[in-house]
Amino acid sequence: MAEQRQPLITLLTDFGTTDYYVGAMKGAIISINPGVEIVDLTHQITAQDIYAGAFTLRCAYDTFPLWTIHVAVVDPGVGSARRPILVMTDRYNFIGPDNGIFSYIYQTENVNRVIHLSSTHYYRQPVSNTFHGRDIFGPCAAWLAKGIEPSKMGEEIKDYTKFTLPQPRVNGTQVQGHVVHVDRFGNCITNLTEREAPSASLSRGLRMMVNNKPIAKFATHFAGAAANELFAYFGSSGFLEIAVPKGSAQRLLEAQRGTEVMLSLVS
Amino acid sequence: MAEQRQPLITLLTDFGTTDYYVGAMKGAIISINPGVEIVDLTHQITAQDIYAGAFTLRCAYDTFPLWTIHVAVVDPGVGSARRPILVMTDRYNFIGPDNGIFSYIYQTENVNRVIHLSSTHYYRQPVSNTFHGRDIFGPCAAWLAKGIEPSKMGEEIKDYTKFTLPQPRVNGTQVQGHVVHVDRFGNCITNLTEREAPSASLSRGLRMMVNNKPIAKFATHFAGAAANELFAYFGSSGFLEIAVPKGSAQRLLEAQRGTEVMLSLVS
Amino acid sequence: MAEQRQPLITLLTDFGTTDYYVGAMKGAIISINPGVEIVDLTHQITAQDIYAGAFTLRCAYDTFPLWTIHVAVVDPGVGSARRPILVMTDRYNFIGPDNGIFSYIYQTENVNRVIHLSSTHYYRQPVSNTFHGRDIFGPCAAWLAKGIEPSKMGEEIKDYTKFTLPQPRVNGTQVQGHVVHVDRFGNCITNLTEREAPSASLSRGLRMMVNNKPIAKFATHFAGAAANELFAYFGSSGFLEIAVPKGSAQRLLEAQRGTEVMLSLVS
Repeated sequence: MAEQRQPLITLLTDFGTTDYYVGAMKGAIISINPGVEIVDLTHQITAQDIYAGAFTLRCAYDTFPLWTIHVAVVDPGVGSARRPILVMTDRYNFIGPDNGIFSYIYQTENVNRVIHLSSTHYYRQPVSNTFHGRDIFGPCAAWLAKGIEPSKMGEEIKDYTKFTLPQPRVNGTQVQGHVVHVDRFGNCITNLTEREAPSASLSRGLRMMVNNKPIAKFATHFAGAAANELFAYFGSSGFLEIAVPKGSAQRLLEAQRGTEVMLSLVS
Repeated sequence: MAEQRQPLITLLTDFGTTDYYVGAMKGAIISINPGVEIVDLTHQITAQDIYAGAFTLRCAYDTFPLWTIHVAVVDPGVGSARRPILVMTDRYNFIGPDNGIFSYIYQTENVNRVIHLSSTHYYRQPVSNTFHGRDIFGPCAAWLAKGIEPSKMGEEIKDYTKFTLPQPRVNGTQVQGHVVHVDRFGNCITNLTEREAPSASLSRGLRMMVNNKPIAKFATHFAGAAANELFAYFGSSGFLEIAVPKGSAQRLLEAQRGTEVMLSLVS
Repeated sequence: MAEQRQPLITLLTDFGTTDYYVGAMKGAIISINPGVEIVDLTHQITAQDIYAGAFTLRCAYDTFPLWTIHVAVVDPGVGSARRPILVMTDRYNFIGPDNGIFSYIYQTENVNRVIHLSSTHYYRQPVSNTFHGRDIFGPCAAWLAKGIEPSKMGEEIKDYTKFTLPQPRVNGTQVQGHVVHVDRFGNCITNLTEREAPSASLSRGLRMMVNNKPIAKFATHFAGAAANELFAYFGSSGFLEIAVPKGSAQRLLEAQRGTEVMLSLVS
């Protein structure tokens, strides 16, 4: 018995944990599907920051078992015409608003179908204008976990919303990347990976510039850096990150999401 | 198997999530009843704010399956003579201190019995003077979920504590309400519902006054309001709320719990 | 069925709940062992504060059922040579870095074996240098919960890391203790218990000094103290604590972890 997996739903939202929102969303899910297991990714995405939600989902989703249903609700357009969608890939299901929150998923996963969740039969009634986590996204995930055929939940669409995510550019030894996320410690996470910036090269000497400020130290782990020294390392999601022990790299670099990162590889 | 529901206990407290309190309370529950499923409503009710706990519980409890046991611990009188109680209604069970935290429940639910949980047999021993969540409320919920007959846990009482909650008053087109909760965004939640303030009327023109400041905009969802404009809308718990995009309605209105809200209906 | 306990894993970390770390760690665990139940102790230990993690674990672990696996990750040395370990006692299992985080456990539990978790077979691959919660500690806990024989996970060690924890000293009626933890309310928790400081004596008159400031009030519960008055009481973990209603004892006493506490017992 211990081996038999319950259907699994994860939740990622910007609801915070001080109000009743997360509790009510879980209640709505469990009321439909008592056999489901719910795991919180986080409920503390910066309010309405779809990019931050998209990036955080990107870093956690594929640690979960195949066929996990990931529900992501950062939804400034709640109550407007933006569509609720189900994204089905080779490995996972994703449910949330069609506002770009799955932009990374469209890159990293093989998308089979995207369904506009238009069948109100699977909504919680009455549907509010301000809380679709409880009334639409949660309930649709609960029904999907119960085995409802996705085609009954709405029609397939092709014109779903994708953000243009910055891509690394390599020109000889020159590599251009961007800061794609700043975490709560002020660490700046770039879109550069081992592919564009092999650690073998970085270990021979780091020549990195952000806003005209040099980062010259490459470390393999936090304990390897000196206090107040800017350094770069590969973070646990596989991206090159910039940090400063006991300080904020974001503040030192005056960087933010979108800031350009330049790298000269040493051969 | 997936359909068979485990007994369900929800937790709402002001313990915060940085200390060991929530963990220890869950440990105490699971040690008594390993088969129970525990769902957090929130542990971030403002410390000792019984009204905020009561309101938050009010907004989340009925999304859960019938017979869920809701444990609510905002308990400034812990260790004093205030009684631990079990409130049994037509649909749910509630466990917590008899300090008014179930005041909304007494309004919205049909109460069958209130039991003073006086039988120390169902407490965790030794009972501390400062942590009844772990030592009394959690354990009693765990035993109840195991099927213990409530009459064995203590005697029925009739004199349980109820707050006087402000009721809306309607006089022709004049409607008087009150702010009953302020959330972490500074949104002011009133006790007015569609019954006293039909959205059909509000849509024709909003004439609302709070602390001599007018609110003139009625919206059906957040995206419908302009930046820095005070507006009213029906929130997801069915109450009329006042908000301002990217700002705090509480601060703009100098409002707090108990502040009067006046409305002139447009016919 | 409801009575059959699932294997249970608790998590205590300093990861915070705003990023993807907790979610990814849970995903890694569930992917290995879908039948496990995961309970959060807290993820908000002050960053890299091993002592605070050790103390918090101390206060919560033994409310859980026997054989619970407690995973504790406050790990400033992640990626360096510090060892991942499994501590097996008469009653529980503990998994985390060998950096002193289990120092209280070595005092309170009867330790049978400490295993250096060196078998990479039970790690998640590839192993990052910065996130062993997801790559080593979580996976090893998941495998252990699956019934893997601990001796297969690594070799026994004897030279594991222990902090020297201050011990109370009693000299006639003079008792010396120390502040061992300050909680988020500024309450100062000492290492004195009923053994060194019997409440029968404290009730006859409290003569306590911290940083040359007297604490003269002993109370059995919070409601027994006046506003702004420093008082001492036995907290829910069995230690004598110092608090001040609606204020911070830490600030009033200019105390911190390690501050000496002197007590003259009244006979």
